[in-house]
Amino acid sequence: MKGVASSSMKAWRGGRVLGATRVLPEERPVAIVAQQSSVAVMMCSPADLEDFAVGFCLTEGIVTDLGQIESLEIAEQDRGTELRLWLAPDRAEALAARRRFMAGPVGCGMCGIDSLDQALRAVPAVGPGPVFAADEIAGAPEAMRALQPMHDRARAVHAAGFLVPGRGIVAAREDVGRHNALDKLIGALAREGADPGAGAAVLTSRVSVEMVQKCAMAGIPAIVAVSAPTTLAVEVAAGAGLTLAAVARDGGFELWSGAERIAGGDDVA
Amino acid sequence: MKGVASSSMKAWRGGRVLGATRVLPEERPVAIVAQQSSVAVMMCSPADLEDFAVGFCLTEGIVTDLGQIESLEIAEQDRGTELRLWLAPDRAEALAARRRFMAGPVGCGMCGIDSLDQALRAVPAVGPGPVFAADEIAGAPEAMRALQPMHDRARAVHAAGFLVPGRGIVAAREDVGRHNALDKLIGALAREGADPGAGAAVLTSRVSVEMVQKCAMAGIPAIVAVSAPTTLAVEVAAGAGLTLAAVARDGGFELWSGAERIAGGDDVA
Repeated sequence: MKGVASSSMKAWRGGRVLGATRVLPEERPVAIVAQQSSVAVMMCSPADLEDFAVGFCLTEGIVTDLGQIESLEIAEQDRGTELRLWLAPDRAEALAARRRFMAGPVGCGMCGIDSLDQALRAVPAVGPGPVFAADEIAGAPEAMRALQPMHDRARAVHAAGFLVPGRGIVAAREDVGRHNALDKLIGALAREGADPGAGAAVLTSRVSVEMVQKCAMAGIPAIVAVSAPTTLAVEVAAGAGLTLAAVARDGGFELWSGAERIAGGDDVA
Repeated sequence: MKGVASSSMKAWRGGRVLGATRVLPEERPVAIVAQQSSVAVMMCSPADLEDFAVGFCLTEGIVTDLGQIESLEIAEQDRGTELRLWLAPDRAEALAARRRFMAGPVGCGMCGIDSLDQALRAVPAVGPGPVFAADEIAGAPEAMRALQPMHDRARAVHAAGFLVPGRGIVAAREDVGRHNALDKLIGALAREGADPGAGAAVLTSRVSVEMVQKCAMAGIPAIVAVSAPTTLAVEVAAGAGLTLAAVARDGGFELWSGAERIAGGDDVA
């Protein structure tokens, strides 16, 4: 199975030491290369990399539409994997202009961001989107469990799924990185021609602001997460008109913004 | 308390909807600025930022010693916080040379890395370090719990601690980001004049390769983590001679490399 590998170790349990094996998540450097120039390198689970390339380009604003990616080649190298993209001329020029605009080569934790203003980039407001039953939101993380084969085998792997009212989780992707899992999901939706405005991103992780930014960039109007959001994630979600449900477990959830997309959500205090 | 804030939401529980509040982790863009030029922007818990600045510079190779940071100023801006560093002349020149060397402005998920080779940067081999009792390793995550005040209040916050044989956890730092928590710990050790070679980094998270790279760069010879490592983390830890203990819970742990630093560790199969 892609993305996991069995490894041997010594297990200390109950005062005894035994040789044992465990299935671990694989991790591999993956470079996004556009027009023969490196855009970003991330540590990824080496699976669904076409989805990752497309999703990353959409959520980081490199393209606004799948059609702007003219070709995509996966090139395995000794030290990692290159995802080589060729962009439509106008997007290639926009990327080159963005590079020229940046003050100088930067190192960053956030995909090319070299200033505080860029870190809080403006994201588009999301569309009206669907209305979810409260039970669908509360049950989404449990429903995700059947769609996490890497996690079943290796644990310690994040997943992102897409919940459509009345249809359940229609797609899911996994990665050692939670941002990567979301980018893979968004890429998968684009490649399938699915409407990102028709459902919610279901996250197995906490919700930091980048996860909200990526959903807004992709036009996904709602997030359902197992864990809690940060204060900044709540602020940006509210600003973009996004429904943010978190701590979805034990049959309930906490709603931080966007009650209009939950059936009965506007009726309550 | 720094790093957390109370927020209100609607809680769906047991078929009822109630107004409620929850304490959330704060998240704020933090820019590392050296010689008036941006090096990186990360989303951080806004606490212990001096430690963060020092630790980041050490683990990313911007300085090799605390003395090379001539001054550090924390400048609060509307959109985030700037950590303004002035480096010793030789380190400032090294940073400028590194910027010139890079092919062009890059966006990245990994602090200035724009190629596959840089992602798997060579890290120094760690020193011999101490020997730990197996019980100290197994109990370290439990011992950390008393040192996680942000997590107590807001959950969803990572921590990194420093375990010294016979002394327990002597320092700990928290952050919404696991890399940041480790950088803060490493900076705190440097600022206290503590020897990073004398103990183990205790991580509340899984172990991805960057966590191993950061420990090796700081000269910390052992890692104890609550969750599992990735395959690449195991490989890099073994290559740097680092002890990697993971899945430390329920009185036991799994040892992936460096058995010579566990009492009795070499005697077993």
